[in-house]
Amino acid sequence: MNTAIYLDHNATTYVDPKVVDAMLPYFTEKFANPSSIYSISEEVQADIQTARETIQNLLHAKNGKIIFTGGGSESDNLAIKGYAYANQSKGKHIITSQIEHHAVIHTCEQLEKEGFTVTYVPVDDKGVVKIEELKKAIKQDTILITIMYANNETGVIQPIEEIIKIAHQTKIAVHSDAVQIIGKKEINIETLDIDLLSFSAHKFYGPKGVGGLFVKKGIKINNIIQGGGQEFKLRAGTENTAGIVGTAKALEIAMQNWKEEWDKEKKLRDELEKSLLSLIPESQVNGHLENRLANTLNIIIKYVEGESMLLLLNSNKIYASSGSACTSGSLDPSHVLLAMGIPHEHAHGSLRFSLGKKNTKEDIAKVIEVLPGIINRLRAMSPLYKGGK
Amino acid sequence: MNTAIYLDHNATTYVDPKVVDAMLPYFTEKFANPSSIYSISEEVQADIQTARETIQNLLHAKNGKIIFTGGGSESDNLAIKGYAYANQSKGKHIITSQIEHHAVIHTCEQLEKEGFTVTYVPVDDKGVVKIEELKKAIKQDTILITIMYANNETGVIQPIEEIIKIAHQTKIAVHSDAVQIIGKKEINIETLDIDLLSFSAHKFYGPKGVGGLFVKKGIKINNIIQGGGQEFKLRAGTENTAGIVGTAKALEIAMQNWKEEWDKEKKLRDELEKSLLSLIPESQVNGHLENRLANTLNIIIKYVEGESMLLLLNSNKIYASSGSACTSGSLDPSHVLLAMGIPHEHAHGSLRFSLGKKNTKEDIAKVIEVLPGIINRLRAMSPLYKGGK
Repeated sequence: MNTAIYLDHNATTYVDPKVVDAMLPYFTEKFANPSSIYSISEEVQADIQTARETIQNLLHAKNGKIIFTGGGSESDNLAIKGYAYANQSKGKHIITSQIEHHAVIHTCEQLEKEGFTVTYVPVDDKGVVKIEELKKAIKQDTILITIMYANNETGVIQPIEEIIKIAHQTKIAVHSDAVQIIGKKEINIETLDIDLLSFSAHKFYGPKGVGGLFVKKGIKINNIIQGGGQEFKLRAGTENTAGIVGTAKALEIAMQNWKEEWDKEKKLRDELEKSLLSLIPESQVNGHLENRLANTLNIIIKYVEGESMLLLLNSNKIYASSGSACTSGSLDPSHVLLAMGIPHEHAHGSLRFSLGKKNTKEDIAKVIEVLPGIINRLRAMSPLYKGGK
Repeated sequence: MNTAIYLDHNATTYVDPKVVDAMLPYFTEKFANPSSIYSISEEVQADIQTARETIQNLLHAKNGKIIFTGGGSESDNLAIKGYAYANQSKGKHIITSQIEHHAVIHTCEQLEKEGFTVTYVPVDDKGVVKIEELKKAIKQDTILITIMYANNETGVIQPIEEIIKIAHQTKIAVHSDAVQIIGKKEINIETLDIDLLSFSAHKFYGPKGVGGLFVKKGIKINNIIQGGGQEFKLRAGTENTAGIVGTAKALEIAMQNWKEEWDKEKKLRDELEKSLLSLIPESQVNGHLENRLANTLNIIIKYVEGESMLLLLNSNKIYASSGSACTSGSLDPSHVLLAMGIPHEHAHGSLRFSLGKKNTKEDIAKVIEVLPGIINRLRAMSPLYKGGK
């Protein structure tokens, strides 16, 4: 039987069965509202606290607190708007990049409507934020720099350490949407000295609908959802106890052997990359070849449409994407690839493969076997393709 | 063995095992991101759509759409801020009541900081919003009235139909935080002609961390979490598929026999109420005796502290509350009881029992057996209590 090959782990992951097991008691037995004052509530409250500390330990984040949110996008919104509102007396300028996730870009655009100004720093042709442009963008009234840790489409890792050093010279706070890297690589928040950092459980084999925000001690943010006093008064609403416990469990599993997993996925990804580049003429890898998530391959195959490739891969039960899942409904080419200077017509022909724990050599061999034929079929129909000329 | 008696269902409910079963496949098998374009995503997307339609059918809400959120509080925030921001060109005045959940009151207070004006309409001594005061509060620039459907502390059901009729005469939109009534009683959204209505799954044996907002066709709201285009562009973030499917399943189960459940709980609640009133001198029921959720009893026992009663009930494995779980960390007396004109010292002595599906005659008998003794002990220590004089 033709088994499915899932290669879209940057979009989402399955929940690890051990994570599901950890969550289950919180549905039917330990179901109490953590804010109540009887003993069964105190137990659940203690379990949330344990989950919080587990995450703080795993991320080396004892120099601040973790706020649980309803997902990564909410976490980005809370960090950026929360910081902007709480610190607007110091200034109303924010710096971000042109390749951020829409949860960051659209939040910044919202703040622009409210009277903030935002600079969207460009990236180079490898998808790396231009540090010199970022430095030039800093103004007297800059209060926050928000740059993603690793790009969801290309996997390119940004020079966050350097950005933090630059920002802190003039007391500008730094937020990073670290949704794509947390769980894939060990991050030391304390050494990094970052002020705000967002993550999302469903990117590291945890449940959907829960994420978190690290807030460094001394950093003031406003809440964006008002109501009860949960999460240090920074996120109202009855805690998603099962989701919170599941997030901690998922991160614990991910950090146990992240390096082995990284190396394994890198080897498979590199094999996929090398083979596709050699088998498919007029193809190229997008993004920095070294500073990149080990699991991600973003490749342009000229003179074909990403969507057509995906549909034919799908009929072979191979699941990949043409970019971010959140925007896959849109027909516009990826803003990330366009920012890297890739022309519209080529950006349309991008494919993203993002590997995960269950992927095997055989999975990769299957893609290598199938994709070149798909490209040949599509290019044979393409008025644009003239044998690579 | 002394088994636990849970009487705090207004704070939260356990998740029905059938709901857990419905959720499980979305963790490990049907885990795909609903926004992706391959076939396993389309299936999940279809399942979300089915969940949405199930809820629309059960709430008779085909005259609009359901937006899934990260909980009831977020739903209140989205409704109130979303409507205020989208319609501020028509006016900046909002009417609410003094007995709303903090997710409504604190959201209104936030809007006041942003230049909106808010009238907090008082309630009568039965906890019912004063309609004449509400009418008087309507101004030229009133755009929204937000009044809860049933109060979480007293269970008192508000005259929503009447409020909607009044509001619509001058084209004011109406939102209702219906978190405490949805799942307990059949509501016909279309007949009601309400514009915005919030609910939360964990109040009707569904999971925590997921809620919903009904938005009537033609009603414009802004999103409050920016990012991807999920949920009709009104709530960014990868969908909590398991939570959404679980919400629909929970509501389906709740609506199958809500009337029998309502009657059963009412009978038990009435027995509890009658017995406690007769056995405990200087006690009284808070709130309207008729227009009230069948499961809720809010009782004041004078000259004792609510917290002390709860702790002694807790040592008998009886779990109740002194008001809303969200504020139970606070030492302030309930704003709901104060708004009803109950003096501070008596409001401190309030107890809320909220019944649920598993409660039995024996549970109630146990409370009736235990509580009077607890009160006697506490009153014997109270300097305020002089034998009821």
